[in-house]
Amino acid sequence: MASPSQENNNKLLIRVSELFKSLQKKLYSKVGNIVEKAKEVAKDDPRRIIHSLKVGLALTLVSLFYYFKPLYDGFGVNAMWAVLTVVVVFEFSVGATLGKGINRMLATLTGGFLAVGAHRIATLSGRTGEPIFIAIFVFVIASTVTFMRFFPSLKTRCDYGLSIFILTFSLISVSGYRDNEVLHMAHQRVSTIIIGTCTAIIVCISICPVWVGEELHNLVSSNMEKLGNFLEAFGCEYFQLFECGKSDHDNSFLHGYKSVLDSKNSEETMANLARWEPGHGGFKFGHPWKQYLKIGTLTRQCAYKIESLQCQLKYSKIQTSLGLQRKIQETCVKVSTESGKALKELALTTKNMTQSKSSNANIANLIKAVENLKTLLRISRWEEAIPLEIIPLATIASILMEVVKCIENISEVVHELAFTAHFKCVDATVSPEQSCLFNQGTIQPIATMNIEKHEDIALAE
Amino acid sequence: MASPSQENNNKLLIRVSELFKSLQKKLYSKVGNIVEKAKEVAKDDPRRIIHSLKVGLALTLVSLFYYFKPLYDGFGVNAMWAVLTVVVVFEFSVGATLGKGINRMLATLTGGFLAVGAHRIATLSGRTGEPIFIAIFVFVIASTVTFMRFFPSLKTRCDYGLSIFILTFSLISVSGYRDNEVLHMAHQRVSTIIIGTCTAIIVCISICPVWVGEELHNLVSSNMEKLGNFLEAFGCEYFQLFECGKSDHDNSFLHGYKSVLDSKNSEETMANLARWEPGHGGFKFGHPWKQYLKIGTLTRQCAYKIESLQCQLKYSKIQTSLGLQRKIQETCVKVSTESGKALKELALTTKNMTQSKSSNANIANLIKAVENLKTLLRISRWEEAIPLEIIPLATIASILMEVVKCIENISEVVHELAFTAHFKCVDATVSPEQSCLFNQGTIQPIATMNIEKHEDIALAE
Repeated sequence: MASPSQENNNKLLIRVSELFKSLQKKLYSKVGNIVEKAKEVAKDDPRRIIHSLKVGLALTLVSLFYYFKPLYDGFGVNAMWAVLTVVVVFEFSVGATLGKGINRMLATLTGGFLAVGAHRIATLSGRTGEPIFIAIFVFVIASTVTFMRFFPSLKTRCDYGLSIFILTFSLISVSGYRDNEVLHMAHQRVSTIIIGTCTAIIVCISICPVWVGEELHNLVSSNMEKLGNFLEAFGCEYFQLFECGKSDHDNSFLHGYKSVLDSKNSEETMANLARWEPGHGGFKFGHPWKQYLKIGTLTRQCAYKIESLQCQLKYSKIQTSLGLQRKIQETCVKVSTESGKALKELALTTKNMTQSKSSNANIANLIKAVENLKTLLRISRWEEAIPLEIIPLATIASILMEVVKCIENISEVVHELAFTAHFKCVDATVSPEQSCLFNQGTIQPIATMNIEKHEDIALAE
Repeated sequence: MASPSQENNNKLLIRVSELFKSLQKKLYSKVGNIVEKAKEVAKDDPRRIIHSLKVGLALTLVSLFYYFKPLYDGFGVNAMWAVLTVVVVFEFSVGATLGKGINRMLATLTGGFLAVGAHRIATLSGRTGEPIFIAIFVFVIASTVTFMRFFPSLKTRCDYGLSIFILTFSLISVSGYRDNEVLHMAHQRVSTIIIGTCTAIIVCISICPVWVGEELHNLVSSNMEKLGNFLEAFGCEYFQLFECGKSDHDNSFLHGYKSVLDSKNSEETMANLARWEPGHGGFKFGHPWKQYLKIGTLTRQCAYKIESLQCQLKYSKIQTSLGLQRKIQETCVKVSTESGKALKELALTTKNMTQSKSSNANIANLIKAVENLKTLLRISRWEEAIPLEIIPLATIASILMEVVKCIENISEVVHELAFTAHFKCVDATVSPEQSCLFNQGTIQPIATMNIEKHEDIALAE
């Protein structure tokens, strides 16, 4: 038999090993979770892995500054500014990296220049006056420039530059009155920052570059496509609703449009950054990025209306009905489907940067469908109608007519974009001059002509 | 008579003076414009001026590091990290400054610690192996941490911290293999950054602090108020429309709700930053900021519906009508006005952090109004109705009923907030225990009880 103390020891050992095992298990599950998450993040956008490796590469390249003695002797401790610059400036997209890099270089140059000037003025005032002058300069410049950061026009373009300006000015002018190598220090800071920025920009552009302009282009067209998908599906979904009581096909794309509702912020940021990018692919420098914001705004307005349609889909349970109700329902489905097609065609026009005649054909079909709906609503009569029963259908008809107005506006702005960005014409049956005539403003797009005319009639009634 | 050359000289002088004058004029107008803009920016939010002065003050304070010799001797060139930290960390709100500051301090500490470790391991591998090891370490750590910045949970909380981590790690481990004072450098960097951060935080909190939590609180309640204003005005506006054909009062607040549509991004940023703030005013540390996001989401959903109402106001020109039409119109106006009142009361509850019985009374009135509308729509009959004529009114009635559903949801979430954040009860006529009973979940808010019941009836019909 084992002694009691030995038994206790054994028990303790078992407990410790159990604790260890449970800890190990927890650790494994934690690591497993992190790996799962990492896989998800990478799967969402595989370019993220490339970006991470690019940052690692750029930093390793810049750290050569410390390694090669001749370079190190030239720049000294200031070489660390190059490392710092790479970390701070290197962003996911070329536009962001260029914007930050150029901002940083210009701000460092002007800030350094001004600081050297401030230092010269301060030294003229003698040993005691110098620090007082410097303190006043720093206070005034820092306060003024910080206030300037609130100006909307400066905020969008050079917020980062202004903060770097304050930084450089204070660093150089303040450190200046300790050692008198102000000019030398300013020169070193500027050159190391230029080297760091250039390293970041070169690595960013040369290895699998992510162009923010292209992202914006794709975002705007995919947003239109999402709305188009909804409208196409809405027709079928609604038809099924009153055909068999419930829907049985996958309706996930009925919710795809939700992301469009909150797209304003990212679109604006992208458009601001895209302006920094040089020409790439089909986009020249000076591509009309602002036009995308216009399309974005109109797409969002359309999305708000679609949100109302989706509410109807959620709440109104319309049973199979006959006569006028059914006729209106069928016409609404037609309008919805044609709206979806027209929007998807506009999305395709934008995405491929090519204009085709089918875009106009789609809009002509849409106009025909909406005209049919209006005629039907105008000439028929509801006899002994109970308002509460009619309301869901009336609401859907009304919102669909507004959606068509929105699509007309979107079509106009897309055609404006096609004109300013010189989209290609791809109609084999029509000569390029003919198919792109409205591109030059001589022929009004069909959408504008017809809908306006019909609207006037409809509204007057 | 003057000689020709003298005449030429005179002409030149006149031209130069004219050029000078026009330049002066242009300069004056430019300066005037800038001053105008600055006034506007300052008027929009006078706290911007105070913030700018605060930044100036903090920078001047930190520059004392260079001025006082004992301090300067202690920290040397590294004292500039303090200046840099103040510029980078000092933000408009306390939450943002604290978030960045704490991120920066923790990241510098951990990054420095790891870099010292990496340096020790690298030195073990001898003179030639050292730089290779260091380069590998920098590449691996920079790539991994850059990838981690894409994790959504890390992105919202410590994106800045991760970038500072990379920065500190590379700076210290890379600079380490040139001079062997790694530990000394790490210590200096950490302490100067702590000093800079503390200066920024102390100045930010002690002089007219801007609490981002309070901003969020005000934004969310003012958004509800804006929607309330619209709904109150919509009733009158619409009533006027069919009363006298056109509206003649100022309808600027009919557009105030537009800003609510795009508020998602700023609300989320604010809620993230608010978590960093210590208790202040009526807000304790750990105030349920996430609850505000819920209110914000529902408010936006309501705003989308209001956007549809606004469309109706813009397009449908309803003439004075009699009979059933008029009855429905009047009931709609009543629902709209009551909705506005209820929303404004909820906004007031949130803003003042006090609960009153009038909030429930308002919602009871709203329920009564919407019930009246539904009864009217249920029991009446349209005889020989032309669909196109009924549609605008039917749409408004339908959207208004959806708006009421939204307000019910908002009311629920506001009451949840009142419960979790312990809002005060301010009913003189009712005992505090009684008026706040539903606060503890024992009594369901009137809104929830009645509307649910009525909804079921209405939807079944």
